[in-house]
Amino acid sequence: MQKQVEYEGAVRTKYPEQVVIAIAKDKDGKANPVTLGWTMIVSGKPPMMAIAVASRHYSIETIRHSKCFTIAFPSAEMADMALFFGSRSGRDFDKLANCDCKTEPAKAIDSVLLCDAVANFECELESETAAGDHIIFVGKVVSSHTNTEPKKRLYTVAPGHKLGSAS
Amino acid sequence: MQKQVEYEGAVRTKYPEQVVIAIAKDKDGKANPVTLGWTMIVSGKPPMMAIAVASRHYSIETIRHSKCFTIAFPSAEMADMALFFGSRSGRDFDKLANCDCKTEPAKAIDSVLLCDAVANFECELESETAAGDHIIFVGKVVSSHTNTEPKKRLYTVAPGHKLGSAS
Repeated sequence: MQKQVEYEGAVRTKYPEQVVIAIAKDKDGKANPVTLGWTMIVSGKPPMMAIAVASRHYSIETIRHSKCFTIAFPSAEMADMALFFGSRSGRDFDKLANCDCKTEPAKAIDSVLLCDAVANFECELESETAAGDHIIFVGKVVSSHTNTEPKKRLYTVAPGHKLGSAS
Repeated sequence: MQKQVEYEGAVRTKYPEQVVIAIAKDKDGKANPVTLGWTMIVSGKPPMMAIAVASRHYSIETIRHSKCFTIAFPSAEMADMALFFGSRSGRDFDKLANCDCKTEPAKAIDSVLLCDAVANFECELESETAAGDHIIFVGKVVSSHTNTEPKKRLYTVAPGHKLGSAS
């Protein structure tokens, strides 16, 4: 049976919620990673993925500048890194230079891949749509990569940015 | 270490993937449910959610007609129903009349809620954006409901529409 409640209460039923790390280079060539829970696949042929990024975030500028971005699926071991990327702004700070995160150049776009991620998807920017306090960016996947080791994906498993594997 | 692979291989690392059931009424007043894995929250204030619906699906017509839709989080017990809603077209078929699915009227929009779902979100259509072979609909959440009993959300846990709880 359903009971009408405030949105904030109802949305707490969403967990586990997938986590991705989106990465785009800014005008100075600095690759800027941001951790996002609001993401989905949006097309099969051609493959496309979407992310929703808070309007005030520096990542908006980097994606608009690059017109491309990486979507990495972090592994469960990358929880601390995902929290770090999600809690600092890259506006005046080089997140990748200040943590122990191995990267390698992307193959088809001007971005980087996260070496320890479960998978990386290189996306060319297709569209952006304003939606409330976020902007939805849609990217066409032009190159895909997986880890050579089997890894579990990272999820938000409970409120308060509690991260872990989903199973 | 990353290895470049086909997209189809890389995207198999996405599981578990959340499942929602979106419901909109068609021009004859028939509420039409469709099961979707491609969905995300897109805004906090005001709360908004997005779904990606295959361009050829009847649901496109129903959402455009109603300009509103319900997003239900099905419970793990609703796996068979979710498969049924996802495998039949509502174009010439009344899915809700042909299954044992309890519904109740939505409160703020002209749609229905699924009584046994974990939660239901009533959404007013805000925008639509074409993305490859799908259309992204963004809805503003105007009313929210949760189940009076604790329930686990339903996820796709492996390829081939294998559904279950994520933990």
